[in-house]
Amino acid sequence: MHRIRNLSRLTNSFQGLLNSKCLLPNRLVSCIASLEEPKRPNVVTTTIPGPQGIALKESLNQIVLSSGVMFFVDYEKSIGNFIVDVDGNVFLDVYSQISSIPLGYNHPVLIKAATDPKNVATFVNRPAMGILPPRDLTERLRASLLSVAPKGLTEVQTMACGSCAVENALKAACFWYQHRERKGSPPTSEELDSSLLNMPPGSPKLSILSFKGGFHGRTFGALSCTHSKPIHKLDVPSFEWPIAPYPRYKYPLDKHTEENRAVDQTCLNEIQRLIDEYSEKGCPVTGLIVEPIQGEGGDNEGSPEFFRGLRKLTAKNGVAFIVDEVQTGCGPTGKFWCHEHWNLESPPDIVTFSKKMLLGGYFYRPEFRPDQAFRVFNTWLGDPSKLVLLEAVIKEIRDNNLLEGIAKTGDHLINGMRKLQAKYPKYLESARGRGTYAAVDFLNPTLRDRGIKELHLNGIHCGGSGERTLRIRTTLTFNKKHADIFLDRFDNVLSKW
Amino acid sequence: MHRIRNLSRLTNSFQGLLNSKCLLPNRLVSCIASLEEPKRPNVVTTTIPGPQGIALKESLNQIVLSSGVMFFVDYEKSIGNFIVDVDGNVFLDVYSQISSIPLGYNHPVLIKAATDPKNVATFVNRPAMGILPPRDLTERLRASLLSVAPKGLTEVQTMACGSCAVENALKAACFWYQHRERKGSPPTSEELDSSLLNMPPGSPKLSILSFKGGFHGRTFGALSCTHSKPIHKLDVPSFEWPIAPYPRYKYPLDKHTEENRAVDQTCLNEIQRLIDEYSEKGCPVTGLIVEPIQGEGGDNEGSPEFFRGLRKLTAKNGVAFIVDEVQTGCGPTGKFWCHEHWNLESPPDIVTFSKKMLLGGYFYRPEFRPDQAFRVFNTWLGDPSKLVLLEAVIKEIRDNNLLEGIAKTGDHLINGMRKLQAKYPKYLESARGRGTYAAVDFLNPTLRDRGIKELHLNGIHCGGSGERTLRIRTTLTFNKKHADIFLDRFDNVLSKW
Repeated sequence: MHRIRNLSRLTNSFQGLLNSKCLLPNRLVSCIASLEEPKRPNVVTTTIPGPQGIALKESLNQIVLSSGVMFFVDYEKSIGNFIVDVDGNVFLDVYSQISSIPLGYNHPVLIKAATDPKNVATFVNRPAMGILPPRDLTERLRASLLSVAPKGLTEVQTMACGSCAVENALKAACFWYQHRERKGSPPTSEELDSSLLNMPPGSPKLSILSFKGGFHGRTFGALSCTHSKPIHKLDVPSFEWPIAPYPRYKYPLDKHTEENRAVDQTCLNEIQRLIDEYSEKGCPVTGLIVEPIQGEGGDNEGSPEFFRGLRKLTAKNGVAFIVDEVQTGCGPTGKFWCHEHWNLESPPDIVTFSKKMLLGGYFYRPEFRPDQAFRVFNTWLGDPSKLVLLEAVIKEIRDNNLLEGIAKTGDHLINGMRKLQAKYPKYLESARGRGTYAAVDFLNPTLRDRGIKELHLNGIHCGGSGERTLRIRTTLTFNKKHADIFLDRFDNVLSKW
Repeated sequence: MHRIRNLSRLTNSFQGLLNSKCLLPNRLVSCIASLEEPKRPNVVTTTIPGPQGIALKESLNQIVLSSGVMFFVDYEKSIGNFIVDVDGNVFLDVYSQISSIPLGYNHPVLIKAATDPKNVATFVNRPAMGILPPRDLTERLRASLLSVAPKGLTEVQTMACGSCAVENALKAACFWYQHRERKGSPPTSEELDSSLLNMPPGSPKLSILSFKGGFHGRTFGALSCTHSKPIHKLDVPSFEWPIAPYPRYKYPLDKHTEENRAVDQTCLNEIQRLIDEYSEKGCPVTGLIVEPIQGEGGDNEGSPEFFRGLRKLTAKNGVAFIVDEVQTGCGPTGKFWCHEHWNLESPPDIVTFSKKMLLGGYFYRPEFRPDQAFRVFNTWLGDPSKLVLLEAVIKEIRDNNLLEGIAKTGDHLINGMRKLQAKYPKYLESARGRGTYAAVDFLNPTLRDRGIKELHLNGIHCGGSGERTLRIRTTLTFNKKHADIFLDRFDNVLSKW
């Protein structure tokens, strides 16, 4: 008992110290607060990456294929919406780590959260959250994830990344479907035994419907729902699940209303046909997974009418409606969730998230809760240290009305892109987007690739999607000033073609 | 340019401050250094969880199914090998978050790494590592993962978790197999086009061989290789891949040498038969995935002879030999990788890791490097902040010869378990293990469940595996003193039956 008291005294003392406000020296705190973004990009090398980046790329290539590397980043020097590479180039970042940086680099609220002594234990003791949660887990979930839960989705399952979020969302659809088929009865011993052998009835023939051009991840289940590019899929065995067309509209939308409405209806009809076909062939569709805007497949948007139709169609057919908001979630479209733009009569069944949310997972309607523990489970189930950071991100979004800002900045940005499109019709078409989640098509892939390269040399870090699309993915602190820099540099690039 | 200079001045100043040694106040540093584990466990409630834990569990259950929760943990108060719950119970931890805590709770070297100012940027700016790596990535990989790479495996792919590690290892086997089939030719347009539709030849009929009782994760690909318990698999569609028997030995091993050798041979014969069968039916086996000790399926061990046979058999058949060390890796068996116990003639092709390694991933032989970028890819590809912590873990293992300690402690622990087995033959059998990765079977599941419950009430936090096994999974700082506490409490529990 003496040692226990000793432990208690020590840990109380430890905790007392942890109650101090911040681990950072005062000088550092004021220094961070005074950090400012540069006014403009600054490119100092003639190639991207520059000589130091090229050398590092060769060095990395000794231990892992490095040909996908765009450049090496100095994350200590990157600030806000500006990313700095090892050669000293300063880029305005309109790609934000494939849309995964919520507030910009080295944001003070994140530095504060990461250095707050009371969070140290969370950063060094990663728990098995499903069996040994930290004492404040419920509180933390309510302050972070639950505080931004899509309307009607009152429960949440955390995961380590977007792929695992999708994989388990698909499983949740299958559990829900089979629970209904079983009419509440427990599984038979035949089901239990055959499941271990990967055979029906325990491992049943069920399918998930996905869309041409869709992207949901690269693990086997998610990859069977991904159809954006062969590079992701070649040589990997797949489930033979149904694949429906995703709407492809003519732009500007307001000049092609009737044609685009017909596109929606054609897609909905084909989805119904596939659901019927797969039901007849004994591999019923349990769920349908769809992106509000196909982020990897070329920034293809579905209309609110299309998605309202999809909600009705899935409800009528008893198919789970899974909206994959891994890329669209957490504000870039000007609403926290992109599906809020649709005015659905009833909410989606499941909404997946990751990227800007800093950890993966999915929200779900209560009827998608598994009937037993360990059906959706793994060792970590995410990482509470990411919840700490997410809580700071959400507070910052609220305190500074960042989504309102993104909606306004987005209008300005997309208007500017439309003007460039009008100015350069030989190169650009179909400028589009919601908030700053924006895109414009080049007339062919070669032009697009040239555009991305020259934008970099002009100080804009950006990326593509689909075959010939430039995708804009900004942080939530991206503002009019940033948009103007981008538009000006983009104009400058095209003016020389 | 003025602003750029200003930025540079500010960031230099920021970096100067970041060069200070530690963010922690001196008082806290000395306090952490003086923290000591309690001498013994102390249980103060009559149920586990106690009243506060029960209340928290109900509260968590409002937002996610909480029936799997064992108890809520006070991670600030947990120290070393002792875990403290919200009701003030202090347990000796022989489960270590399902084997995922390398050094114990709140270990000083981890606190130091997490609060080192020079790591702040790594904790707050999670990059898309595959395209925009931090400037020091190669260095960090060499100081952490590469410094413990299994012999012969010179490359490494990081991932966020164990499931993604396995999923991508399986894909790597398929890429490698098809690359060979293609004899170096590029994929045909038919392959590229059909892959997008989940159809052969682009999404070919290929299989992965796995083992009865094996566990590799719960995502669709990994789950098709998992066969430990129906709860993981029920209702989830599976690939119809071959499943081989895993050796099940008689204990003690030295008294059943001949029988056990015959078991090995029977298993190897059946594996060869399955490879032939799947080749004939047009769904060839590209890879085989196996645990050195089946961690979830009941702590079943394969012998070094079995694994040497498996290495030969896979090489002969051109099948990738994937050793899943997610649970056995990072030292608990007394060697850094469990497969080091086998004295293989040539190394495995791929070794997966996660858990104690703090992030997921796999090591591989150079011929398993994909031929193009983005075939093995996702947004995060892990998390460099976990590499920072892993580097500290590996240094601590080396500086203090922790693996030697684990080997010795393990001998002491398993000897002690054998003595208990001899003392309580009505309850226990087959005590076994390597290092402190140890297990003992109860004669039936009811006794095992009762044992785990009563061990908790006696201050030992532990868990089960398979149907009737108690699995011991300790940190690497677990020593003889801890083993004696466990053995004493275990004896105490059984003496009252």
